[in-house]
Amino acid sequence: MKSKWDELQDNLNMHFQEVNLLKQAFTHASYRNEHRKAQIQDNERLEFLGDAVLELLISDFLFQAYPHMPEGELTRMRAAIVCEPSLVMFAKRLQFDEYVRLGRGEERSGGRRRPALLADVFEAFLGALYIDQGIDRVREFVDTYIIPHLADAKVGVDYKTALQEWVQQRLGVSLRYVIVEERGPAHAREFVVHVAVGDTVMGIGAGKSKKEAEQQAAAAALKSFMESASEERDTSVSKTD
Amino acid sequence: MKSKWDELQDNLNMHFQEVNLLKQAFTHASYRNEHRKAQIQDNERLEFLGDAVLELLISDFLFQAYPHMPEGELTRMRAAIVCEPSLVMFAKRLQFDEYVRLGRGEERSGGRRRPALLADVFEAFLGALYIDQGIDRVREFVDTYIIPHLADAKVGVDYKTALQEWVQQRLGVSLRYVIVEERGPAHAREFVVHVAVGDTVMGIGAGKSKKEAEQQAAAAALKSFMESASEERDTSVSKTD
Repeated sequence: MKSKWDELQDNLNMHFQEVNLLKQAFTHASYRNEHRKAQIQDNERLEFLGDAVLELLISDFLFQAYPHMPEGELTRMRAAIVCEPSLVMFAKRLQFDEYVRLGRGEERSGGRRRPALLADVFEAFLGALYIDQGIDRVREFVDTYIIPHLADAKVGVDYKTALQEWVQQRLGVSLRYVIVEERGPAHAREFVVHVAVGDTVMGIGAGKSKKEAEQQAAAAALKSFMESASEERDTSVSKTD
Repeated sequence: MKSKWDELQDNLNMHFQEVNLLKQAFTHASYRNEHRKAQIQDNERLEFLGDAVLELLISDFLFQAYPHMPEGELTRMRAAIVCEPSLVMFAKRLQFDEYVRLGRGEERSGGRRRPALLADVFEAFLGALYIDQGIDRVREFVDTYIIPHLADAKVGVDYKTALQEWVQQRLGVSLRYVIVEERGPAHAREFVVHVAVGDTVMGIGAGKSKKEAEQQAAAAALKSFMESASEERDTSVSKTD
C-alpha cells in the first residue's frame, strides 16, 4: 500500500532520497512534543533554511523579469510574494494542510487551518527539497507552482509589462497578442490567446477573460525567454572554462 | 596596462565574463547621476539580489554546521553575520573601498568611508558574481573570504562547539586538540594547533593564542567535513538518477 508520503511525492512529481526530510517539513513542534521518545524533529530549522531559499529564487526571478525596476519596487514586490497570505495560498493549492503532523491539542484547537502554521510548512518543504536535491530542483518547483500564479497572488506582478520590457531591451522588437479561440457557453466563456514576435508564437494562454488569457500567454513567453537566456549563459560559461 | 578592474579580479582570483557587472557593483548612485549620458547603472538592484544570495549561503552554512541549534538561535546568528558592521569588515579586508565609484559631492563628504555604502557594495558584488557565474562560485567566495573569519566577526560563531556537534552526531567519536608548535619571541608568540580524530589530523590552525589557533583548526576541520558530506550527497544523487 502506498503511504501518504508516497502519494504526496507522486502528486508533486518528485522523489525524496531522504523521505524523513519530507516528513520533518510537515511536522509541527506540537507533534514532536508528543513523540519525544521517537526522536522526531520538527520543521522549524527547515523553515529557517527554506525561507532563505525562497527569498533568493523570488529575488532572482524579479531581477531578471523586470530589468528596469528600481530596487525599492523590487523589494516591495518580493515582500508581497514571500508573505504569509501568499504562502498559505500556495500551500493550500497543493493540499499541504492534509499532510501536516500536529499534536492532539493543536489539532483540537484548529491548528491545521492556522495561516502561520501552513506558511511555515510551505517554507520548510522548500528547505527540505533544497537539502535533498539542491537549488536547481527548488527552482523548478518554484517555476512550476509559484511563478505562474503570481498574478493571482495580487502582488502586482503584471506579466505583459514584464514581457514587454524584456523583449524591448534584449531584442528591440514588439509583441502582438492574438485571440485564437473563444470557447464554451456564454456563462463560462474561455479565451485562448497567443503572444507572438513577428510570426513566431512565443506563448499560449487560456483564461476566463481576454485579460487573464493574455497574462497567462505573457507568463509562458517570459518563462521560455528566461530559460533560453539562462541556457545561453550556461553555455558561454562552459566555453570559457 | 592593466585596468584597476583587472587588478581587482586578479586579487580575488576570478574572471568576470561581463566586467560591466563588476563595475556596476562598485557604482554608487551619485556616480551614475553625474554620468547620465553614458547610461551607467548603479549597484542598487545588484545589492537587492546579493543580499538574498548571502542570506541563503550563510543560512545553509549555519544549518549544516550546527545540526542541533534551534531556529531562533540560527536566526540570531545569521542576523549578526549579515549586518552592516560585518559586511564592512569583509569589504575593507578586500580593499573594496578603493574601487568604489562615487559622485564628486559624495566623495568630498567622505562617502567612501560610509559604512552603509561599503556594505551595499559588498552585497552588490555578490549579486554580480551570482549573475555572472552562478551560486556555486559565490559559495566558493563565501567559503574563502567570509566563513573562515566569522570568529573575528564577533557573531558568536564558536567553531570548536560546531565541530564537536558535527563529529558526535555523525561519527560518534571525540576530538583531540594538540599544540604542535610554539614559535616567535615572547611578545609575538604564535601557536600552531592540530585537531585530530584518533590519529588522523583533520585540521590545522595558527594564532596568537592557543584559543585562536584551536578555533582556526576547528574551522578548517569543519570545512573539510562539510565538503566531504556535500560530495557524498552529490554522488548519491547521481547514483539514484
